Amino acid sequence: MASFERMAIIGVGLLGGSLALSARERNLVQTITGFGRNQDTLKRAKEKGVIDDWSADLGTAVKDCDLVVLCSPVGTFLPRLKEMKSALKPGCIVTDVGSVKGDLVRAMEAELPEGTVFVGAHPIAGSERSGLDSAFTELFEGARCIVTPTAKTPKDACDRIISFWSALGMEVISMDPDEHDRVLGAVSHLPHVVAFALMNTVANVTTKTYDDVLCFSGGGLRDITRIASSDPVMWRDIALSNQKQVLTLIDEFQVRLDELKNMITRQDAEPLEEAFATANKNRLKLAKVHE
Amino acid sequence: MASFERMAIIGVGLLGGSLALSARERNLVQTITGFGRNQDTLKRAKEKGVIDDWSADLGTAVKDCDLVVLCSPVGTFLPRLKEMKSALKPGCIVTDVGSVKGDLVRAMEAELPEGTVFVGAHPIAGSERSGLDSAFTELFEGARCIVTPTAKTPKDACDRIISFWSALGMEVISMDPDEHDRVLGAVSHLPHVVAFALMNTVANVTTKTYDDVLCFSGGGLRDITRIASSDPVMWRDIALSNQKQVLTLIDEFQVRLDELKNMITRQDAEPLEEAFATANKNRLKLAKVHE
Repeated sequence: MASFERMAIIGVGLLGGSLALSARERNLVQTITGFGRNQDTLKRAKEKGVIDDWSADLGTAVKDCDLVVLCSPVGTFLPRLKEMKSALKPGCIVTDVGSVKGDLVRAMEAELPEGTVFVGAHPIAGSERSGLDSAFTELFEGARCIVTPTAKTPKDACDRIISFWSALGMEVISMDPDEHDRVLGAVSHLPHVVAFALMNTVANVTTKTYDDVLCFSGGGLRDITRIASSDPVMWRDIALSNQKQVLTLIDEFQVRLDELKNMITRQDAEPLEEAFATANKNRLKLAKVHE
Repeated sequence: MASFERMAIIGVGLLGGSLALSARERNLVQTITGFGRNQDTLKRAKEKGVIDDWSADLGTAVKDCDLVVLCSPVGTFLPRLKEMKSALKPGCIVTDVGSVKGDLVRAMEAELPEGTVFVGAHPIAGSERSGLDSAFTELFEGARCIVTPTAKTPKDACDRIISFWSALGMEVISMDPDEHDRVLGAVSHLPHVVAFALMNTVANVTTKTYDDVLCFSGGGLRDITRIASSDPVMWRDIALSNQKQVLTLIDEFQVRLDELKNMITRQDAEPLEEAFATANKNRLKLAKVHE
């Protein structure tokens, strides 16, 4: 059964807003309650018909809900769960859209009150834009969603969450929470950290004539730094929560970059061309994924 | 005077082919001769009307030309110049579309025969695609072209080259050759090296279940690695020819990346958010350049 009676969305931004719009259109929920830090956003979300009602009090917002979806930055998940746990009704399923699982999932499970269930979920959808005004009904359609049950997750709750995301048009995959963090660290978290670092490096380059060289850039720099416009708080939380994998992956990237640097230092033309040609082939593989 | 009688294009690929198409459309040259390694490409270029004739012999190709444009990878410039120098007619101007200037420009000047002139040029146009079939008439329109005269460059030859690129619809800027290499190293060469390294890092990540995690990527990885599909030989030459600046810029990038790594290691939330927010602001500046 993919549908729920009353869903609370914690954080009505790009993901939370899109989830509300999409779940309503597909008749997966009867009532949607919103909660967030910014009451103006919540008022606007209600006016737009994204949510049915909202509360400035988290306990009030989740009360009577059979589904609570955490859509705020992952750093807020544990504090929010502690704040709401006494108000959760028995049988309530708590899920999320967070980009980090692993330790966070285990901490969430440990914090949950008896009779309620946490099922980690990560719809791989989003954009460098954020906020309610970027939300749209089709955000999740055709994209993948990773669900991260553990040994503690009751099968029926896991099945309901899988059905829920599937009913939103997503291809749902079950994965171990730590494996999720390695995979997403590679395809998403590392690229973001690299983009942030690159953007700040290039923006600080000066010459004797120019104190800003960005005006000489072409489409390449624009594309490679697009994700450097992603939300700083969201990405701060992701980098810190997936610390172990992000650090490991930065190390792996630095090894590759040092290899290229050494080839350039030694004017090693052949291995350099080979490394670039390998990157070409890998990029072609990636392009095929997105065809 | 922006026009020439007879232009030789050395390397009829994306840039050389587009230059021929555009110069012809704007009546800037009367005859276009092509030269390149691949005779099939040259035959096809003639069939398509991109060039008027071609020769498998470089001396024959440049003979009688008053403009020779080097459009092959920058690593070929010096060998080609040595090969063609005895055939250049007096008064001939040699220019290029290469992404590296500095030492290369000085070496070209030293190699040129008496009575001929080299004026370095770098139209900042291109794409991750390459080859004759990617060429199109409008490639240069509205883009910037950096011309890099030195103390040795005769003013009239420099003015003609500036007029030529301007007449192709480009905004021409004069710049010191070394300054060019710092600027382009920042906005183009470093981003390419980073993209190649990142692509190869992510493509090599495996987990206990997956020996390839690219299938879990979203649009972010696709965009950040787009330029990793750029031509390996061209970029090998650029990285090796602009060695000094590329190495300096990789160092500057590694310092930034290490800063972020240390913040993540120490769970320093505030400076991490600040660095990401600064990247946001810099990306916004960059976006305004491309509006």
